Amino acid sequence: MLDKNTKILIVGLGLLGGSYAIKLKREGYYVSAIDTDRDTIGYARKLRLVDYATSEIEEDLIKNADLIIFALYPHIFIDWMKRYGEYINPDAIVTDVTGVKGIITDTVQDILGDGAEFIPAHPMAGKEHLGIENSDPEIFKDANYIVVPTDKNTERGIEICKELGVTLGFARISTLSTAEHDKMIAFVSQLTHCIAVSLMCATDNEHLVDYTGDSFRDLTRIADINDEMWSGLFLDNREELLNEMDKYRDSFDRIYECIKNNDRESLREMMKLSSKRRRRFNIKKG
Amino acid sequence: MLDKNTKILIVGLGLLGGSYAIKLKREGYYVSAIDTDRDTIGYARKLRLVDYATSEIEEDLIKNADLIIFALYPHIFIDWMKRYGEYINPDAIVTDVTGVKGIITDTVQDILGDGAEFIPAHPMAGKEHLGIENSDPEIFKDANYIVVPTDKNTERGIEICKELGVTLGFARISTLSTAEHDKMIAFVSQLTHCIAVSLMCATDNEHLVDYTGDSFRDLTRIADINDEMWSGLFLDNREELLNEMDKYRDSFDRIYECIKNNDRESLREMMKLSSKRRRRFNIKKG
Repeated sequence: MLDKNTKILIVGLGLLGGSYAIKLKREGYYVSAIDTDRDTIGYARKLRLVDYATSEIEEDLIKNADLIIFALYPHIFIDWMKRYGEYINPDAIVTDVTGVKGIITDTVQDILGDGAEFIPAHPMAGKEHLGIENSDPEIFKDANYIVVPTDKNTERGIEICKELGVTLGFARISTLSTAEHDKMIAFVSQLTHCIAVSLMCATDNEHLVDYTGDSFRDLTRIADINDEMWSGLFLDNREELLNEMDKYRDSFDRIYECIKNNDRESLREMMKLSSKRRRRFNIKKG
Repeated sequence: MLDKNTKILIVGLGLLGGSYAIKLKREGYYVSAIDTDRDTIGYARKLRLVDYATSEIEEDLIKNADLIIFALYPHIFIDWMKRYGEYINPDAIVTDVTGVKGIITDTVQDILGDGAEFIPAHPMAGKEHLGIENSDPEIFKDANYIVVPTDKNTERGIEICKELGVTLGFARISTLSTAEHDKMIAFVSQLTHCIAVSLMCATDNEHLVDYTGDSFRDLTRIADINDEMWSGLFLDNREELLNEMDKYRDSFDRIYECIKNNDRESLREMMKLSSKRRRRFNIKKG
């Protein structure tokens, strides 16, 4: 599968692309990179994060790549494929890092047609601050790497993609269908960001800051949010996210009614259910 | 004010009472304790956490105390005061640890009348696991200690209460009115617990656990919740909590509408406001 002769090309050297590059080069692969931003390329060259870096679309570079990793925002990824996808070697394996799959997978697989195989992946890792200068493969250490294949994928493609996750140092590698992935991500990631933003927008916290305990800090850590990236992710997974928001709001409204009606028993039942479910996490983590 | 001759009595040796006891004894005070649970008293004696411990109501012990700290659930605290409040020395200072003040303060001050001075305090510290065996004054180190006086309190009483917070090792000591306190606590503490419980009750997470990133873990850390204590706190601060829940839900509904209407610009505006407000926390912490 992957071996030290595998020529890897990373398109997009942001936080994730950069972290992939550092780790893969450290593991002994030949890594090249394309990014339209010249400062980013300058930075990557100066720190020798990759073996070859360019801000131009170099046809030969793309053609010679055995494994191409797209670390771009979803719509930029699709645009790139439409314009330059034809340069990709039909024997190449193509993967990505995008956090929503429904709007990506079919489109990219259609563009590639009988050519290169696109096997989608979602590395569930990140940082509050983006950009290549924050790249650090340590972010993969405790994180999940999810392979999201369709019936167009081959066993070989899926295995290479999993192997990439292992090589990058992810804690857990798993497989989900596109629909399962997008539903899961709507709940565990997008909904939580909606909640954190709602909480910060609910009231002006200027004086409350002095009194916040750990719980408020924990709940709002993700409220300092990259609005370009996250607004895109929310809207790209609109149906699933609205669905999860509805279910969460029903649950919140049940608590509200319990409090309003002084219904202590029902309130305690919800808290017991919550505690029971939350304790599963401790077991899983330990 | 407080000096090494001050005889301190702690009523209720749970997580907080126990942590107070350990720290105050370590600081050289004579500390005695009452708890109705014999195992708790046995534990406190065996580990010599206090100088004197009893599961009985000993009139002389109460009479001789200069500073009495009540570390009981709100309603148990009020019941105790109604039954045994008359034993308290009129020169004593009385304080507490309860997380809601509106339902406590007037009642207790009325019971004491012209006798001992009750100066309410809220140590914003805790742990997921309660009980004396989890006691540890380290929980005060980064925490807020809030003194919540009324016009019945004296300068001397307020100063002693603040000094107690300093002696216990709290990071920040501040003062709020009863109304300010209960509004603040509804927002930063109770609402966040409502959200965490709602999130866990929204859907059965058995399989999702494998895919949770840090954000979901952070938001639900407090979802493993002591239902006896928290259902009481919620209902004891019902009006303020419902009010904060309303404001939060309005904010959540605004995000929902943005997503539903594909209104990316308004979504980004909310995210920008959220980020701006959340960044204040970093400054405050740093």
